[in-house]
Amino acid sequence: MKQKLAANKPAYLRFFPLLGDIKQAERAGLSQDLLAGMITAILLIPQALAYSLLAGLPPEVGLYASVLPPIIYAFTGTSRTLAVGPVAVAAVMVAAALVPYAAGDPDKYLSGALILSALTGLIMLAMGFLRLGWLTHFISHPVLTGFTTGAAIFIVGTQLAALMGISVPKGVSFAVLLQVLVDNIHTYNLAAAIFGGVAVVLLILARQPLAIGLTKMGMAQQSAMILGRTAPLFVVVAAILLAWWLDAASRFGIAVVGLVPQGLPLPSFDFMKAEGWAELLPAATMIAVIAYVESISVAKILAFRRRQRIDPDQEFRALGLANVAAACAGTMPVAGGFSRSMVNFDAGARTQLAAIVTASLVALAAFLFTGLLENLPKAVLSAIIVVAVWQLIDIKGLKHTWCYDKGDGFAQGATLLGVLAFGIEHGLMLGVGLALILFLYRTSRPHIAVVGRIAGTEHYRNIHRHRVQTWPQLLLVRIDENIYFANTPRVETELHNLVLDDAITDVVLIFSGVAYVDSSGLEMLESIEEELSSSKVRLHLAEVKGPVLDRLCGTKLYESLGGERIYLSTEKAVEQLVPATTI
Amino acid sequence: MKQKLAANKPAYLRFFPLLGDIKQAERAGLSQDLLAGMITAILLIPQALAYSLLAGLPPEVGLYASVLPPIIYAFTGTSRTLAVGPVAVAAVMVAAALVPYAAGDPDKYLSGALILSALTGLIMLAMGFLRLGWLTHFISHPVLTGFTTGAAIFIVGTQLAALMGISVPKGVSFAVLLQVLVDNIHTYNLAAAIFGGVAVVLLILARQPLAIGLTKMGMAQQSAMILGRTAPLFVVVAAILLAWWLDAASRFGIAVVGLVPQGLPLPSFDFMKAEGWAELLPAATMIAVIAYVESISVAKILAFRRRQRIDPDQEFRALGLANVAAACAGTMPVAGGFSRSMVNFDAGARTQLAAIVTASLVALAAFLFTGLLENLPKAVLSAIIVVAVWQLIDIKGLKHTWCYDKGDGFAQGATLLGVLAFGIEHGLMLGVGLALILFLYRTSRPHIAVVGRIAGTEHYRNIHRHRVQTWPQLLLVRIDENIYFANTPRVETELHNLVLDDAITDVVLIFSGVAYVDSSGLEMLESIEEELSSSKVRLHLAEVKGPVLDRLCGTKLYESLGGERIYLSTEKAVEQLVPATTI
Repeated sequence: MKQKLAANKPAYLRFFPLLGDIKQAERAGLSQDLLAGMITAILLIPQALAYSLLAGLPPEVGLYASVLPPIIYAFTGTSRTLAVGPVAVAAVMVAAALVPYAAGDPDKYLSGALILSALTGLIMLAMGFLRLGWLTHFISHPVLTGFTTGAAIFIVGTQLAALMGISVPKGVSFAVLLQVLVDNIHTYNLAAAIFGGVAVVLLILARQPLAIGLTKMGMAQQSAMILGRTAPLFVVVAAILLAWWLDAASRFGIAVVGLVPQGLPLPSFDFMKAEGWAELLPAATMIAVIAYVESISVAKILAFRRRQRIDPDQEFRALGLANVAAACAGTMPVAGGFSRSMVNFDAGARTQLAAIVTASLVALAAFLFTGLLENLPKAVLSAIIVVAVWQLIDIKGLKHTWCYDKGDGFAQGATLLGVLAFGIEHGLMLGVGLALILFLYRTSRPHIAVVGRIAGTEHYRNIHRHRVQTWPQLLLVRIDENIYFANTPRVETELHNLVLDDAITDVVLIFSGVAYVDSSGLEMLESIEEELSSSKVRLHLAEVKGPVLDRLCGTKLYESLGGERIYLSTEKAVEQLVPATTI
Repeated sequence: MKQKLAANKPAYLRFFPLLGDIKQAERAGLSQDLLAGMITAILLIPQALAYSLLAGLPPEVGLYASVLPPIIYAFTGTSRTLAVGPVAVAAVMVAAALVPYAAGDPDKYLSGALILSALTGLIMLAMGFLRLGWLTHFISHPVLTGFTTGAAIFIVGTQLAALMGISVPKGVSFAVLLQVLVDNIHTYNLAAAIFGGVAVVLLILARQPLAIGLTKMGMAQQSAMILGRTAPLFVVVAAILLAWWLDAASRFGIAVVGLVPQGLPLPSFDFMKAEGWAELLPAATMIAVIAYVESISVAKILAFRRRQRIDPDQEFRALGLANVAAACAGTMPVAGGFSRSMVNFDAGARTQLAAIVTASLVALAAFLFTGLLENLPKAVLSAIIVVAVWQLIDIKGLKHTWCYDKGDGFAQGATLLGVLAFGIEHGLMLGVGLALILFLYRTSRPHIAVVGRIAGTEHYRNIHRHRVQTWPQLLLVRIDENIYFANTPRVETELHNLVLDDAITDVVLIFSGVAYVDSSGLEMLESIEEELSSSKVRLHLAEVKGPVLDRLCGTKLYESLGGERIYLSTEKAVEQLVPATTI
């Protein structure tokens, strides 16, 4: 963190950070990248197939999302270890947007996915170039966690159905989903449920227990963890072999992936001619925001571990280009995935060369092994999704937030329930809106403390919290909030109530907590000053911050107070206003 | 203001303040109320006719609004001098809501007006009993001024057309209105224009010039002012006589008021059976908010002049009852009017008995003089509206706000233009939304100052604004804003940039301006602490306010810092962290 920022980097390095990284990289680093890239590819291939099914798209679309977009990001992104590709939350948002849009037409569904990618990319590029990244700050951490948890529960719900071979409609709310699930529970397919159930158990065992076992058997902890993470591929291979050997698709009627076209499509711009851009714009905006926020938070965590830096605006541009590339590559929107980036990092990735290795391996698989996927039971892909998104469910975080701050906890819970009750997008909007309203509510009822001096010091503290010196003729009031339109009536009322005492001849407002007084606030202060002076009480200000004072200069308030009734410190005010004998 | 609040008043006085006032009133006060009530009635009668035409309703409806509702308010309101009745802004909002609702059916239009009154009243009552008055604080003063100015310009536009005898459609936006006005300028009626024009000139002369003239001729200034305010009635009487003598309606084709039914209707609850309550709810909400905000601001100004108090929640209930009464009395929504209340106050009203006198006189007029109104040219009523609302146009205030605060000025200007471009209600919503967004934007980029000690004192101020002592190993940073989700990324980045200097071993965050740290903020602080400590830099906090400290207790941050790295004051922190020789 203490490394100096190379402020005057050449522009090509700012826009293509990979070139700088490669220049600096050593031989050892490159071989680490090679290994990390291979491990990530093993994790990615089954996830890519699974997430495209989650989005309601053909499985190969997930592979396409794992080749060109991460390569584009590799050259332009500022994170060294972020693994870009298809992600679960964006996938389920794509499904939510496309089901009503396509109304059952699979061609329209696919072209809609490309439009979503293109729009997501363009929105991100616009945000990056217009430096509007700060807009995403309005998604608070609790709201994001509530959203992710809600989305994960929703995804687990849909996949539990698929895992048992029960077909449920796509793009419905959680309540409807549960209803359909309960109504159709008798239609479950035993063979599918066995495939899915066994896969879930194996995948869970492969996480903690396998790693612990391997470590006990003497393997290095890191290697054991990584081996555990490659389990999905082995589960997939085993399932394919078993399903083929049992001829499960025709004998037990379980759903399998079916024929997957070989290879990768050539980049195409046909999606530009498709219709419905305006209709999909709101959904694309949501996907862009969520994809960005998810990516940047993973990128920041990983960068912090190695004392590297992320440029938020360049991230917008890089992810934007990756998504435009996704549209050209005929696939769905992409983002930086949490678990995959973690694996990539833990496996020792140093630069985005690892991502290029991963992408090349996925491309190779698309050319060589798609034929093998024909017999893969969909229930196994559902199992992979369930185990992957299960980690996103953060109930402990919910409790933690609630304990620290009831307001934040409320916004988080409401977002979670909102996602389940009203769908992904409405739940998110509900949460963001609630968090803002709660913040406004909070600032509209500011903390106002009457203070006194801690004897023998120059510190002034709340009279209700500390033993302090006070003077009957002098009222010292500290306002702990910016004075703006939403709280002026309340501040005014509180001040009115405080000055009711007839002994008071001087009121000092301490502005140490006031960074800003808007024009409603100024008017209120002017009217208070007028009122007080007509009752022969003098108003004073203390500890006014520079920017506030700059604005006040030239106002009626400043003229009435004059320079001499504005003090640098509360102590100065007290020295001036209290007879020396009583200080 | 210094009078003690009778906190334990009996409940009947809290809900019916008039009874208390009457008990305390002296004889002299009562005769003053009588006089003030008469003068206000003279002003009110022509305004009542005019505002009901502005609302698109028959003229007698304005008279009904001036009898029962103000009597109800007189018994329940906490303002002694607020004159409740029909007001211009609410009238134009009624027209905007009812034109699309009634679609040309005058019966539906009238019953819609009663529903609006009832809904407005019920919303106000609900806000009063649920103590939701604080919601209206979100209408900032600049937005309200922008709104009123916009509405006034809009009203002047419509009335200029009526004044010239040009008919324009009701309920259209300002742009359409101007277009129609220009297109139909040739259809003007010369006689109507002369009536209207002369009335405008007379009314303007009756304000300042007449009062100045009378004062010069030896009349007391106050009396001269009041005499000037009664001019509208004289203008109306003169116009009626002239129009009758010239037979203007049939000879010149000018629009006259026509037959007005005599007397007052009995209270009726038929409106409860009418349809369209849900449809009119949004408009009624807006009317309730604006009517309340207008009333309370006038009430506050007048109460302040006599050191009296307004109870905001009781005002909601009183205005709510008055509006429910308006519905029963067969009339439109009511509010406290600005100019009428001023006249009432200036004429010497002491209690709401004056309002009861006014209402009785209006009732008398409704029984005795409605026959005379038949020949009153509508152009004269338009002239009264134009001159009355002209004072609401506050361009100086716009400039003043802009000079003090560009953000507030922008919100004000946008509200004004929004009202003209998108209509009354959308303009208001635009303004309120913009003001909130600007506030959020502002708090999302907090002021962060590096501070040092002013030599020989215990005061720490911005190093860029004052000559201060600093120490190379010690970074003192003051954060001048609550730390919450919208600004944590920015605070984090700024702190990162500040601690880049390798000499720094201790960082003190001064929280004198922080009244609140939300859970996103806490997480950021925890991650900063972790980062710093891994770089062998210690984080400290100083001047943490009580409520903030209470929350921090028990968090990971508090545990890592321990009590000893949280200081009461910056001075204490410096004493601890800087070797005594260098202090």
